[in-house]
Amino acid sequence: MDNFTFFNPTTIEFGIGKEQTIGQHLAAHGIKKVLLCYGSERIKRDGLFDVVSHKLNENGIELVELGGVVSNPVISKVREGVVLARAQQVNAILAVGGGSVLDSAKAIAAGVYYDGDVWDLFIGKAGIESALPLFTILTLAATGSEMNGAAVVTNENTKEKFFIKSPALFPKVSIVNPQLMQGVSRDYLVYSAADIIAHLIEAYFTAAAHPALQSRLVESLINTVVETTEALLINLANYDARAQFAWAATLALNGVTTAGVGGFSFPNHAIEHALSALFNVPHGAGLSVIIPAWMKWYHAHNTTQFERFAKNVFNVATPEQGIIALEQWFNQIGTPTRLSQLGIKDADLPSIVNNVRSNVHGFGIADVYSAEVVITILKTAL
Amino acid sequence: MDNFTFFNPTTIEFGIGKEQTIGQHLAAHGIKKVLLCYGSERIKRDGLFDVVSHKLNENGIELVELGGVVSNPVISKVREGVVLARAQQVNAILAVGGGSVLDSAKAIAAGVYYDGDVWDLFIGKAGIESALPLFTILTLAATGSEMNGAAVVTNENTKEKFFIKSPALFPKVSIVNPQLMQGVSRDYLVYSAADIIAHLIEAYFTAAAHPALQSRLVESLINTVVETTEALLINLANYDARAQFAWAATLALNGVTTAGVGGFSFPNHAIEHALSALFNVPHGAGLSVIIPAWMKWYHAHNTTQFERFAKNVFNVATPEQGIIALEQWFNQIGTPTRLSQLGIKDADLPSIVNNVRSNVHGFGIADVYSAEVVITILKTAL
Repeated sequence: MDNFTFFNPTTIEFGIGKEQTIGQHLAAHGIKKVLLCYGSERIKRDGLFDVVSHKLNENGIELVELGGVVSNPVISKVREGVVLARAQQVNAILAVGGGSVLDSAKAIAAGVYYDGDVWDLFIGKAGIESALPLFTILTLAATGSEMNGAAVVTNENTKEKFFIKSPALFPKVSIVNPQLMQGVSRDYLVYSAADIIAHLIEAYFTAAAHPALQSRLVESLINTVVETTEALLINLANYDARAQFAWAATLALNGVTTAGVGGFSFPNHAIEHALSALFNVPHGAGLSVIIPAWMKWYHAHNTTQFERFAKNVFNVATPEQGIIALEQWFNQIGTPTRLSQLGIKDADLPSIVNNVRSNVHGFGIADVYSAEVVITILKTAL
Repeated sequence: MDNFTFFNPTTIEFGIGKEQTIGQHLAAHGIKKVLLCYGSERIKRDGLFDVVSHKLNENGIELVELGGVVSNPVISKVREGVVLARAQQVNAILAVGGGSVLDSAKAIAAGVYYDGDVWDLFIGKAGIESALPLFTILTLAATGSEMNGAAVVTNENTKEKFFIKSPALFPKVSIVNPQLMQGVSRDYLVYSAADIIAHLIEAYFTAAAHPALQSRLVESLINTVVETTEALLINLANYDARAQFAWAATLALNGVTTAGVGGFSFPNHAIEHALSALFNVPHGAGLSVIIPAWMKWYHAHNTTQFERFAKNVFNVATPEQGIIALEQWFNQIGTPTRLSQLGIKDADLPSIVNNVRSNVHGFGIADVYSAEVVITILKTAL
């Protein structure tokens, strides 16, 4: 087991009605004025916006709105948020939405304290020293952003989908009420399942050594995602399945499963980010296409761990059977497993490879993921 | 899944050499003078004391010593620590040792801010509003105290072994270097295994409903404890086994496995505390005696979960087989399973029952654990 530092200061308020506590949490942190980031106008139609603004009002907290954050969130909206947060002199950011809203809010929170263009923080031109305090109300469980210090944003001009990471970006409080997620479409539910599984398998398969303890935790969470996704597809109102799905999503990327795991990387994310950046495909849908293809190329590098996965997740014997079982499961739940399902053709591959090459540089795995390797993986996914 | 709040602000510094960081952590928190709590003089013989005092000195931090904390720590030593901490005007407590030292340090940290007798905090006469900041260097993995806000101390006059719990008692930083644990005796290693398993099974078996996600996490940790204990008994110098054992101990009681789990209790702890309080038996040894006896009495209340346990931990079919398998495993590793092995006889049972009755009141389960029930369990353990 590798040496590690574990630190995760985010308070999670989990369960039915917990959005009602947002006013008191903000007040307890001395917040007087927040920038409320959100995506579509859905939160106004379904009443969540009213609850939040009422609770803020009750606690004497002013609210400035920034709506219109899109899936695969873009840096132009972040820049708009930075300008607005400064002009309005808010002293916190409140994100109400899914991972895209949370990640945009994190970038705004960091950008407010940085004098240059906020994109500099994504390309390593500047580090993140501090950020506005961040609070979140999650309406879609997938990215784990509610309990970590990372954010992913796309630069729509350069077609780069890059990430930032800093202890300053842990939310102070994240509210996770699974009932608020019942409106998530079936499509986004299954994309989310693929996203959570992707978060869990990256370190599991790529680590130089993966201790049995951490492998068991990962398998526990994958098995939970598999089981609860199937239960939700039968009945979207199954609260207990929704709750376990949501908590699995949080635990999948809050540092618990990777504590003590060294030398791992995020190749599936590095490749998928090119699909999202170039073709605006939903992140989870891109991942469910890339993962089986990547596995077919990669599994010989780590036969032992692929055998574990095959046995402990799908109860089959060989690495190849495990990969096929996962691919079939993705097909069964209805998340794509082929580039063609995303409208991506053979002729698009060169531009994807170019984009991936800049990502793998950012992820520190440029030497392994040469253009030849990436094209091999992509062709398997056609 | 029940509503919950998850909050655990402790920084864990895990791995080889991490004790070297203690000075910088204290300095980063602005600490100028610490009360260093420890148990036996072993930390002076093995060099750990020298490392710590050197690192404190390097950072300009003064040190006041409080040695002599015993296993099953006593309130008289806590009182001594409170007096010393006040007289010396320390602004933090540094615990170097196992759970007994950490728990004593927590009680001292809370006691310094309370005007009355510190035992009042254990009997509910007063609440814990604040505490001195607490730092720990763990030398025995078992109790999980390094990453939670609870402490257990014995009043040697009243023969009460009671607990306190408060968010103010989370350590700021805990250093967990598995190499520092290589000197732990085989006896205390196997008692520790029983203690960790006890922490994991209490909620697992007694919760009104135990979600599959959390059940999987618990089973993952129990399986890790079983596997690594066996590996350590073959080779006490097996670092990787020692590390997984230690991290499992931390995860077993830091709130991760019980988040979302409602309506559970600690009957095995409530009963064992009487054995420790009256006969000063090692906590883990007392637990490995009580657990199989409690299980034989209790399992019919939760057949489903006992079947899960039997299958997923010991790969056997029925609740009864699972219980026997655990009992045999305790025997195999060499932790006791009978009161007689602790020198406790039939004639001692009435005094134990009386003591347990006051504990179950503190644990909120006095109505279930009547004198008749407790005597039934104890007789099974004779």
